[in-house]
Amino acid sequence: MLLVLAERRFPIASLRVFASANSAGQRLTFAGQSLVVEELAKAAPEGLDLVLFSVGATVSRAQAPRFAAAGALVVDNSSAFRLEPDIPLLIPEVNAAAVLNWAPAPGRRIVAVPNCAAIPLIMALKPLHDAAGIERVTVATYQSAAGAGIKGLRELEAETRRDLAGEPPRAQVFAHPLPFEVLPHIGAFEPDGQTSEEAKIVAETRKVLGLPALRVSATAVRVPVRVGHSAAVWVETSGPLAPDEARHLLASAPGVVVVDDPARADYPRTRLAAGTDPVYVGRIRRDPTVPHGLMLWVAADNVRKGAALNAVQIAEHVLGVAGSMAAGPRSESTPVHR
Amino acid sequence: MLLVLAERRFPIASLRVFASANSAGQRLTFAGQSLVVEELAKAAPEGLDLVLFSVGATVSRAQAPRFAAAGALVVDNSSAFRLEPDIPLLIPEVNAAAVLNWAPAPGRRIVAVPNCAAIPLIMALKPLHDAAGIERVTVATYQSAAGAGIKGLRELEAETRRDLAGEPPRAQVFAHPLPFEVLPHIGAFEPDGQTSEEAKIVAETRKVLGLPALRVSATAVRVPVRVGHSAAVWVETSGPLAPDEARHLLASAPGVVVVDDPARADYPRTRLAAGTDPVYVGRIRRDPTVPHGLMLWVAADNVRKGAALNAVQIAEHVLGVAGSMAAGPRSESTPVHR
Repeated sequence: MLLVLAERRFPIASLRVFASANSAGQRLTFAGQSLVVEELAKAAPEGLDLVLFSVGATVSRAQAPRFAAAGALVVDNSSAFRLEPDIPLLIPEVNAAAVLNWAPAPGRRIVAVPNCAAIPLIMALKPLHDAAGIERVTVATYQSAAGAGIKGLRELEAETRRDLAGEPPRAQVFAHPLPFEVLPHIGAFEPDGQTSEEAKIVAETRKVLGLPALRVSATAVRVPVRVGHSAAVWVETSGPLAPDEARHLLASAPGVVVVDDPARADYPRTRLAAGTDPVYVGRIRRDPTVPHGLMLWVAADNVRKGAALNAVQIAEHVLGVAGSMAAGPRSESTPVHR
Repeated sequence: MLLVLAERRFPIASLRVFASANSAGQRLTFAGQSLVVEELAKAAPEGLDLVLFSVGATVSRAQAPRFAAAGALVVDNSSAFRLEPDIPLLIPEVNAAAVLNWAPAPGRRIVAVPNCAAIPLIMALKPLHDAAGIERVTVATYQSAAGAGIKGLRELEAETRRDLAGEPPRAQVFAHPLPFEVLPHIGAFEPDGQTSEEAKIVAETRKVLGLPALRVSATAVRVPVRVGHSAAVWVETSGPLAPDEARHLLASAPGVVVVDDPARADYPRTRLAAGTDPVYVGRIRRDPTVPHGLMLWVAADNVRKGAALNAVQIAEHVLGVAGSMAAGPRSESTPVHR
């Protein structure tokens, strides 16, 4: 989050950093300035224009309203508020209008960041919906260890080393050892057999696209990738939409980069996406099993566009500050549009 | 293949082993007996009851008919003959009847083993089709490095070591480095944007199930797993089929083991499947986006049931020799049916 704020030259007069009691008192550096971490639960909420929350839903639920009530815009990365009707769930490139004429009640000036697997999916769906009307979406995800936080990433690396050394890999962050394995299990299982991650993808796609009855089904799978979520996506539209037309629409969509040159083995990959801003879409082809069907392959950096970048973009958009929905400085290394 | 023959106590009076000129003259041991590898292209085809081919399609196409013409039953693992109308494409548990009253022309006494990603899919679909009529299948695969042979497996391990040592991983077997990556690219790209692997899954599912118009679409993805292919599967049936009913049908199907206890984080995983015979099915749940839809997660050892085991089972079935379609000795370590 701090890196993204710095990269995008977000106009900051003063910055405070908050964490749990465990981390309070530690020091962080931002733009050459040393900052002391304050204890979130005890911090005075007054005088802040913007508070970016990136904590679990329980802490967000308890703390975010306090800062919003004191006058700040709160941008929250957790699932705490995403589905509440008065809270905008925002991807600025997709549904910027959700905060037009927004008049939040006291303590409700909170905008939610969608789930990190939902954001790239929705970014890819939006231009197709605008052109041909999306009726049904089927998605199988390939989600990285970083989706479970820095502990997930470290567990993947450490346990892969153990595995390669001939020792059995262990699991603390994940339900089973992730090295050289795929696990169809992200979040908690719900009574209907879905996981909470799958339920988020379904519900948030509907809310952000403003299509409460959209038919969406998802299987969410953890894969041994460090950073970067991928997805195989099937889209059924009400009108015809040829792959070339979809490719053209996606190539023109803000924040989307089309990488689709099979002859050169070029398609979205997490090694392309990690550390960059765009959502990459490729392998765009017809699904011949329905009248109007397309198949896509999508990849994005789940820590950037899936979380920190989208949060900062929300702040830029709602506060109307300088900053751009186009990719930031890091995108210099972004592959050119093909 | 030799391991499976030994495990299943396949009745062998004498055994010959063939390979390319490069490997001719090497020695292999089977059941305590030392065997000298013969050069396939120069070998006399006479006097063999059964020849198991596990080579590329080009070599199979050139050599298999020669052995079939000399009187052997040829079981071929390649894609060379799979879609030819007079060649049975066989999964004994699924379409044993395909070799009933089979009267092959000279040189055509060849039975083909389906693709290693298609076999577990079809094994999971068959009981559902018999009960409720399958209309459409959507599948996203998670295929292991071993699907590209021993070289693929070695490349994954060696390059993962390089990656963890801070060196950039390389790719020779795969189109891009596979460590900590997922690649939506197996086989070659075809003009319609599908890969050859995806086309195989579609065409072979239709042929084995005897449903030439079945609507199937697939995205085939290589993942950094050593051995074991997994898949997220959506099935639309013409009649109703509740998840509990599907679970019951699958649990009764030969060669299938249901592992579906989300409360205990129990679902098919490649670490369960690798080295064992069954096809594992779990995460069986309703797809609420269609009138009659189910979602499944499937995993199997792609080297065993996906190739060698299925080939030996075909030989047992066609030759009517002792042997069982039930799992062999290795399945002692198979998790019990849950």
